[in-house]
Parts: sequence; structure tokens; C-alpha cells
Amino acid sequence: MSITLIQAQRIAEAAREKAIAIGVAMNIAIVDEGANMKLFIRMDNAFLGSADIAIKKARTARLFDMDSGEVGKLSQPGGPLYNIEETNGGLVSFPGGVVIKDSTGKIVGAIGVSGGAVDQDQAVASTGAGAF
Amino acid sequence: MSITLIQAQRIAEAAREKAIAIGVAMNIAIVDEGANMKLFIRMDNAFLGSADIAIKKARTARLFDMDSGEVGKLSQPGGPLYNIEETNGGLVSFPGGVVIKDSTGKIVGAIGVSGGAVDQDQAVASTGAGAF
Amino acid sequence: MSITLIQAQRIAEAAREKAIAIGVAMNIAIVDEGANMKLFIRMDNAFLGSADIAIKKARTARLFDMDSGEVGKLSQPGGPLYNIEETNGGLVSFPGGVVIKDSTGKIVGAIGVSGGAVDQDQAVASTGAGAF
Amino acid sequence: MSITLIQAQRIAEAAREKAIAIGVAMNIAIVDEGANMKLFIRMDNAFLGSADIAIKKARTARLFDMDSGEVGKLSQPGGPLYNIEETNGGLVSFPGGVVIKDSTGKIVGAIGVSGGAVDQDQAVASTGAGAF
Repeated sequence: MSITLIQAQRIAEAAREKAIAIGVAMNIAIVDEGANMKLFIRMDNAFLGSADIAIKKARTARLFDMDSGEVGKLSQPGGPLYNIEETNGGLVSFPGGVVIKDSTGKIVGAIGVSGGAVDQDQAVASTGAGAF
Repeated sequence: MSITLIQAQRIAEAAREKAIAIGVAMNIAIVDEGANMKLFIRMDNAFLGSADIAIKKARTARLFDMDSGEVGKLSQPGGPLYNIEETNGGLVSFPGGVVIKDSTGKIVGAIGVSGGAVDQDQAVASTGAGAF
Repeated sequence: MSITLIQAQRIAEAAREKAIAIGVAMNIAIVDEGANMKLFIRMDNAFLGSADIAIKKARTARLFDMDSGEVGKLSQPGGPLYNIEETNGGLVSFPGGVVIKDSTGKIVGAIGVSGGAVDQDQAVASTGAGAF
Repeated sequence: MSITLIQAQRIAEAAREKAIAIGVAMNIAIVDEGANMKLFIRMDNAFLGSADIAIKKARTARLFDMDSGEVGKLSQPGGPLYNIEETNGGLVSFPGGVVIKDSTGKIVGAIGVSGGAVDQDQAVASTGAGAF
């Protein structure tokens, strides 16, 4: 079973509250099991350019079933997945994309967050994913 | 002043309630004054392919400051704007995209809805825009 | 010799004055002999979506050395150039793109105008091209 | 309030005069608050390929509310935003894109300049932004 809208809204709300708590305006995107967009919000005053990044982080995490930042460790010059960012209509390989798992460990979607420093993005995404 | 997240959420909620009332699962997108995406939701069981359509309907409405269906009246074969859909990274020119105006009549964004018959999409979008 | 910036500015200014005279806010683009963009302006309150259209009209006119609307006569369903709009990164085949010729009749560029009805766009573009 | 055409023209003219003063032919682009293009000029003999770069620099600056070169400090191999240039339809992360602020510090647009060495591009863009 994929993620429902109510679940996605709960995840996004947890992420948004975390973003407020750390004082950064974020773009937040959630994709479902099929890597198709389920929900997106841009908080007021968040970077306009972070919308596309948040969506691509969520897609990257679900497309490869790992945090987006893990992809980035492999995509550097000389690395085994160099320039993988060119594929799938554009990936984002730095932190802020996190897979969402159900209570059995099954991946049901992913969340992508962009707007702060990458560790802030990652923290907000992890908080969101943890609220599932 | 452009649309805030709280305003966008209120609009989307009004649209979603209308969609439930008419019994159709919808994709709902909202863009701000600059035609940049502010909010997106896909209701459970809504067409996957309608996500992109909802987003493009919202963009089309704001890019030309008219309902998306008005563009379609002009873009038919032999019409004055034939194939305008090829521009701006892809437009959608059938109904379901509606501009959002503030109380002074100023356009502050647009909503795009896709998932049902076009008259249903248009009704849901209009309900959403009216909730601003 | 291709069009200079001063010439392009003179053309754009003539087009802009015509747009003001007929009371329509326009997007105005000028490309040079190589179909590369030389100048672009969006008048205040002009449609956001008409920027891309103005640029593509100018490119279409220079790429085929005819007014953009002439292309549209050939690109209709059943016509000899059906869906030519898909080529060259996107063409616009309705009126508003006009070639710019020097005093010897040599084509040195093109102007594209978008923001009003297509006959208004065409009139503004023609005025601009005539100011060369 | 976003940037007007007259303001954009004043900014572009200041940038162009600076470009003449340092003896480099430049492409100059200005986007508004919504990151939508407002004005573009290519000076005579400026690189053809710098048109797209100038536009993307302006967009990059506004999409992330910082100079384009600041993005580039973070997007290097091993850096926190590696390959961010793949997002938003293509970013440019080297210097020459500068945000435009009004007298209250509010960002109302951005200018992108390309055609010289990056420090020249940056100097011309800064001169333009300072003329607002």
C-alpha cells in the first residue's frame, strides 16, 4: 500500500514544524511508492529555486531507495556513479531526500526538503519521514 | 503581496472538499504571483498523469491571466493561437486552471485541477479560487 | 552585417510606442541574423507567458525568413508542415513574428511580439521592423 | 512591488556603461521578483553563448537570493551542493549574477552578466544592481 494524502500531510506538517523550530523556510516534497509526486509545499519566504530541488531530492531517494546524500557519495568525479545527476530528468544527490518506510521497513515513498544548509534539509526530511 | 502558504492551504482544502462532494479524486496545484509552485496535492486514487496537468493548468492561468480553458478556445487548428501549448515548457489549454484574485481584483496566483471531466476540474478549481 | 544593439533598441522602442498607442502591454524580442537573441523587454503588466512566445516568434520568423503567421498557414492538421512547432526547441506559428530587412532587402534579423490579440501583436511587430 | 521596465532599463544602462568602461562586450539579463525575464540585451560583438549564461545567472541569483558565485562555492565536487546546476532547468553557479534590492533591502529581482572574465562579469552586474 502506498502513502495516502492524510499520511503525506502528517509527514509534511511534522517537517514544517521542524523547519520552523530551526528557523529556516523550506520547500517540502513527498513522493509515493511509484516516485510520483503526492504533496508539495513552499513555506513563505523559502527560496524559489528550492522547489525543484526538494522534488528532485524526494524522487532521487525513492528512485534508488536510499537517502539522496548517499547517491552523492558515489557520484563525485572518479566515483562509480559519476554524473548520475543527468539521468531520470535530473537528480539531486546532496542531502535532504529521505525514504519513508512503514512499520515493517517497506519503503512507501520519500520526502525531499530544500531551503537551508544541507544538514538542516536532512534534519527536516528525517523528522518528516519519522512521522509516518 | 503574493499568496501565502496558509492561504494556499485554505484554497486547496476548499477545492478538495468540492472534489469529495462531486465524488472525483483530483490533483490540485497552486502557483503564486510569479507563476512559481506554492502547493500541490494528489488525492488518493487520482490519476498519476493528472499531476503534471494540474500544475500546467495553474501555470497557464497565471501566465496569461485567464482561465486555462479560455486559452483553448483560441489554440484550436485554424485558431489564432494554434499550438500555443508548445510554449513555456508546456501549457494545458483545457478547463481546470483558474486565476486567484484578491479582494481588489489583483491576480495573486492561480489554481489548476485535474482528475475528472474538464467541467468537474473547472468547478473544483473555481471553488478553490473562490475561497481566497 | 547583422543588427546592432542601437538598431535593436530603436526597433524595440518603436514597437513599444506602438504598443502604448494601441493600449496593450507587450513582450518584445529581437533576434539577429543568426537567430540569436539580441534584445528582449517585457512591458509592465504584460503577460508573463508571452515572454517565451515573443522570443519564439522572433526565432521562427528568422529561422524560416517569413512572418511567423505564414508558418502557421502551413502547419495546420492536413497541411504540409503539420506540427512543425515541435522543431527547433519550439516554434510559434501564429502572427507576431516579422523579419527585419535592411534597405537592400537583406534579412538581418526578426522581431517577435506577444501580449495582445494576434493582429495587435503583428501590428506592433511590423511597426518595429519598419523602424529599422 | 516588482521591478518596472524603466527601472530595468536604468539598471541595464548602468551595467552597459560599466562594460564599455572596462572594454568588454557583455550579455546582460534582468529578472523580476518571480524570476521571470524582464529585459535582455547583447552588446555588439559579445559572445553568442553568453546570452543563455547571463539569463541563467540572473535566474540563479533570484532563485536562491544570493550572488550566483556564492552558489558555486558550494557546488564543487565534494561540496554540499554538488551538481545543483542540473536543477531548475539549468543554473549557472559562477560569478556574474547579483540580486537587486530596493531601499528597504527587499529583493525585487536580479541581474546576470556574461561575456568577460568572471570578475568582470561580477563587477558589471554589481554596478547594474547598484543603480536600482
